Amino acid sequence: MKLPVSTEWLLHCATTLAQLDPGATASAAQLADYYDLPAPYLAKQLQALVRAGVLAATTGPRGGFRLARPASEITLLSIVEAVDGAASPYECREIRRQGRGALPPEECERICVLAAKMADAHAAWRRSLDGVTLAGILGELPDAAPARTRARLASIARPAPPR
Amino acid sequence: MKLPVSTEWLLHCATTLAQLDPGATASAAQLADYYDLPAPYLAKQLQALVRAGVLAATTGPRGGFRLARPASEITLLSIVEAVDGAASPYECREIRRQGRGALPPEECERICVLAAKMADAHAAWRRSLDGVTLAGILGELPDAAPARTRARLASIARPAPPR
Repeated sequence: MKLPVSTEWLLHCATTLAQLDPGATASAAQLADYYDLPAPYLAKQLQALVRAGVLAATTGPRGGFRLARPASEITLLSIVEAVDGAASPYECREIRRQGRGALPPEECERICVLAAKMADAHAAWRRSLDGVTLAGILGELPDAAPARTRARLASIARPAPPR
Repeated sequence: MKLPVSTEWLLHCATTLAQLDPGATASAAQLADYYDLPAPYLAKQLQALVRAGVLAATTGPRGGFRLARPASEITLLSIVEAVDGAASPYECREIRRQGRGALPPEECERICVLAAKMADAHAAWRRSLDGVTLAGILGELPDAAPARTRARLASIARPAPPR
């Protein structure tokens, strides 16, 4: 049971974007430099957050990524599930219906009790991550962090616009 | 984020073994027939439950597997973690320490706030599964299920002992 390595990347990038001034953006190349990550692969992953409605992408020389919604409305769950999907890690293939022990169909109308308990656990995991917003994360950072984040991002040059 | 397919097998096999009479066993071949599963691979997985102290294995013509502890002391968590390990699905590679945005070491003495929230979610998942025992699962089965399970298992012949 493993989340993709890019889960960490996107949680950090979204947290970084949550610290920008309103309307400001950061490019995939800037974020890749900021965290020393492979830019092309990061750009692809950031697009998954755009598709999930977590980030908005703008084009043009000052274009890039910004939050699509207020930081108080973006949960860690929405970021993690944008990367990895919302499926439960437990897959029930209904083995209760097969072999010499196969249950009669009328006993399989309700979800298998084992699958139900596994679903309860997944629901507990989702609830936990759904209760944490980017605004909440920012509230746990040192007071000076957002200004430092903005200054460091600004120090990473964007490519010169075409003349 | 996926648990192995064998997670379902082992949850069901442990539930089946919890329905046997005290001291009775079922062989890997019997359990494989019961659920129409590949016997050699199932046998290997059952050994993982033995190593985890969930099942005990006995040898001899009437040998096989039985619970190593009372069903009230075996949690779904112990079974799932015997299959898949206890590691969190989220891997923190400390990208906060690298790149142009690298945090100073003194700000990295405590766990990253994002990793901490992901650990909270994993703890919620573990707590949920740790709260369900095989005895609890048996309590949710139809009253007639254990006797039927025993009769069906008994109907699956064991190989004849060598003369």
